Amino acid sequence: MRQVVILINLKTYREGLGQNAHRIARAAEEVASESGALIGICPQLVDLHPLARHFEIPVYAQHVDGVPPGAATGHVTADALKLAGAKGSLINHSERRLTLAEIEASVRVCEQNGLTSVVCTNNVMTSAGAAALSPSFVAIEPPELIGSGISVAKADPGIIRNSVEAIRKVNTGVKILTGAGIQSGDCVRIAIELGTDGVLLASSVVKADDPGAVLRDLVSQL
Amino acid sequence: MRQVVILINLKTYREGLGQNAHRIARAAEEVASESGALIGICPQLVDLHPLARHFEIPVYAQHVDGVPPGAATGHVTADALKLAGAKGSLINHSERRLTLAEIEASVRVCEQNGLTSVVCTNNVMTSAGAAALSPSFVAIEPPELIGSGISVAKADPGIIRNSVEAIRKVNTGVKILTGAGIQSGDCVRIAIELGTDGVLLASSVVKADDPGAVLRDLVSQL
Amino acid sequence: MRQVVILINLKTYREGLGQNAHRIARAAEEVASESGALIGICPQLVDLHPLARHFEIPVYAQHVDGVPPGAATGHVTADALKLAGAKGSLINHSERRLTLAEIEASVRVCEQNGLTSVVCTNNVMTSAGAAALSPSFVAIEPPELIGSGISVAKADPGIIRNSVEAIRKVNTGVKILTGAGIQSGDCVRIAIELGTDGVLLASSVVKADDPGAVLRDLVSQL
Amino acid sequence: MRQVVILINLKTYREGLGQNAHRIARAAEEVASESGALIGICPQLVDLHPLARHFEIPVYAQHVDGVPPGAATGHVTADALKLAGAKGSLINHSERRLTLAEIEASVRVCEQNGLTSVVCTNNVMTSAGAAALSPSFVAIEPPELIGSGISVAKADPGIIRNSVEAIRKVNTGVKILTGAGIQSGDCVRIAIELGTDGVLLASSVVKADDPGAVLRDLVSQL
Repeated sequence: MRQVVILINLKTYREGLGQNAHRIARAAEEVASESGALIGICPQLVDLHPLARHFEIPVYAQHVDGVPPGAATGHVTADALKLAGAKGSLINHSERRLTLAEIEASVRVCEQNGLTSVVCTNNVMTSAGAAALSPSFVAIEPPELIGSGISVAKADPGIIRNSVEAIRKVNTGVKILTGAGIQSGDCVRIAIELGTDGVLLASSVVKADDPGAVLRDLVSQL
Repeated sequence: MRQVVILINLKTYREGLGQNAHRIARAAEEVASESGALIGICPQLVDLHPLARHFEIPVYAQHVDGVPPGAATGHVTADALKLAGAKGSLINHSERRLTLAEIEASVRVCEQNGLTSVVCTNNVMTSAGAAALSPSFVAIEPPELIGSGISVAKADPGIIRNSVEAIRKVNTGVKILTGAGIQSGDCVRIAIELGTDGVLLASSVVKADDPGAVLRDLVSQL
Repeated sequence: MRQVVILINLKTYREGLGQNAHRIARAAEEVASESGALIGICPQLVDLHPLARHFEIPVYAQHVDGVPPGAATGHVTADALKLAGAKGSLINHSERRLTLAEIEASVRVCEQNGLTSVVCTNNVMTSAGAAALSPSFVAIEPPELIGSGISVAKADPGIIRNSVEAIRKVNTGVKILTGAGIQSGDCVRIAIELGTDGVLLASSVVKADDPGAVLRDLVSQL
Repeated sequence: MRQVVILINLKTYREGLGQNAHRIARAAEEVASESGALIGICPQLVDLHPLARHFEIPVYAQHVDGVPPGAATGHVTADALKLAGAKGSLINHSERRLTLAEIEASVRVCEQNGLTSVVCTNNVMTSAGAAALSPSFVAIEPPELIGSGISVAKADPGIIRNSVEAIRKVNTGVKILTGAGIQSGDCVRIAIELGTDGVLLASSVVKADDPGAVLRDLVSQL
């Protein structure tokens, strides 16, 4: 059986910055150890190096540019992520959209540097398009569910089901994450039942008073 | 047998603007009529309406935004293209890259307005990615060939062949154009032999002293 | 006394497209003739050429790229606008933001082609920044007022007043438009009293059942 | 007399990453101490926190987004830079252009977080435009000089002189850096004589076998 993946995107929340990021990473490490789930954390770049140093759970960047080392001021190179201890990176998050050519280049530099690539998508068609680029993961973020307070457990799961089907037609090997509408253990269970390998989530963990309690609930039905 | 497609991108060349655009359209109409090839023209937007009025060959926009009518100042809507007489639009040209989400949205608004969508791509993987979005055409523009003076007839055609193969795995119905390195009738013949439905080209026609002569050469081996 | 300027941005509204654009242009031409105000119209690009052909009021593009003629597929060149009969162009509208370098380049290509440049800005500081680029006009569009239903006649006019003051410190010659919150003749009068040369507006004219009546009201207190 | 400022932009060069960044920072700290010049370093974001921890010289980011903390995945917030120990940030570098509205927002979030803002510009007009936004510094990077191998000491310094003059008309307080064409002590001296407060440079230090020797040469004529 595949290991369930839970990626926590700290975004640019204050509650996920600096010592707060460490606090969430510590909770994630505990719950990962207890549950056997793979729990990863996606901090701001300034926190990546210290978190990768202090914790054993995988740390991912929120963005990587598909450019080689060189004259690219203000960009994020895959070799810099690797050297800082990152395990991989989100790519094309709904808050940081890239061109098709850039997404493909980002996936390739991840491959070249041994990094896991997680390409975010917004609907059935773009999920298939992303899968055709052969990233490690496609994370489906239907805009209907993002920040809507609607959990995938209660909403019509058709968009996730149809996306999984469209992805599988194009690429049988890519892993898939349910990337929006995740609030509880019910949601994670349903995400797995729909054929995805795990979840990508943010505020419900990052803004929680007790991130560990939320994470324990998320893995409770695995 | 499928009708061979020749799309002439006028870009923003002075030689393809206003009366010059009319001159090229007239030549294209003649050669299309003589040869039976489908020859289309992609002018700047200000020329689209007059060209569609005066000529019977299909006229395409160089770009369309996947936004609905409304508050999108400075954008190009599909309904405006349709109303002006356009037959379709290029999307994601190498000189006007779009995000994956935007490309998909542009393809959809073309569908909804009965317009032909021609998505440009830069390599094997992005060609497959674009094909997964189900546009009317994928036009492969390998950067190795763009504006290089290297004709696809003489260069290694592997990138076109591999792109066609990758596209076919994802989408058996989409049409394909060879989008760079086209200079002569040899190139068009090879483009067809490689399994594509035609060509997308620019400067070799637009900057020619006699566009009709170049077009006659292009269709000479069909 | 300076001639009052009223620019009507048709955006991508259906109500401002094709025959609808002609209807609004006709009303604008009548009211301009009656009132002596300079009333201009900013249609989608496909309508620019026909409108410039059929009407005597000035027609402006909604966007222009600061690139020379050449290989810039999907872009809008100043020489194309000029040839199509445009009088000028909006630049950096809130719905089509440009980099500082691009804005400056767009202003320069307008100058070189004898086109009026209207740079849109969002607050006091960016209004000063735009004025330093020496465009023909700065159009101040405070986001607090855009599409808010709040008219500048009733809102605190401090942001317009402070922007005018900041612009004047940098550039005494540039003309200024009040670019949001314009709904009635009161608003136009206040815009003039605040030291601006006129207004840039959209939906209140474009979506009106009787654009002529709205325009007559707008100029009623001049 | 004002302290001369030398900012070293490590870009995304391998030679400026990880332990290489530490090596350059160490050399910079020594030469700053010997010379009294303010020597700052702009690493990739993953190196910012460790460099700020280990060295006393100021460390600057290469880019900052003008967004508040919150849902902005893949962006760089000013509070994150501050918390990681940054002294300030480059903004709108020629390799990472921003819209006018974004530049202004980035300058403001720097102000709010007590960070130094260094806005890069490409010519006389945009230098004046940037100065109107009241950043801490404007860094003039004429494209004619960037990566050209042409030193400002030998090239026509008119563009720097004219930019300084245009900036001063708009803003008497902002500091100015000469941002391209800096290779030697002669260049730094000339940059100061032209009325700028220092220099922003990259490859001549980053790619040097002995960065300390290059830095000693740069400050040799102060």
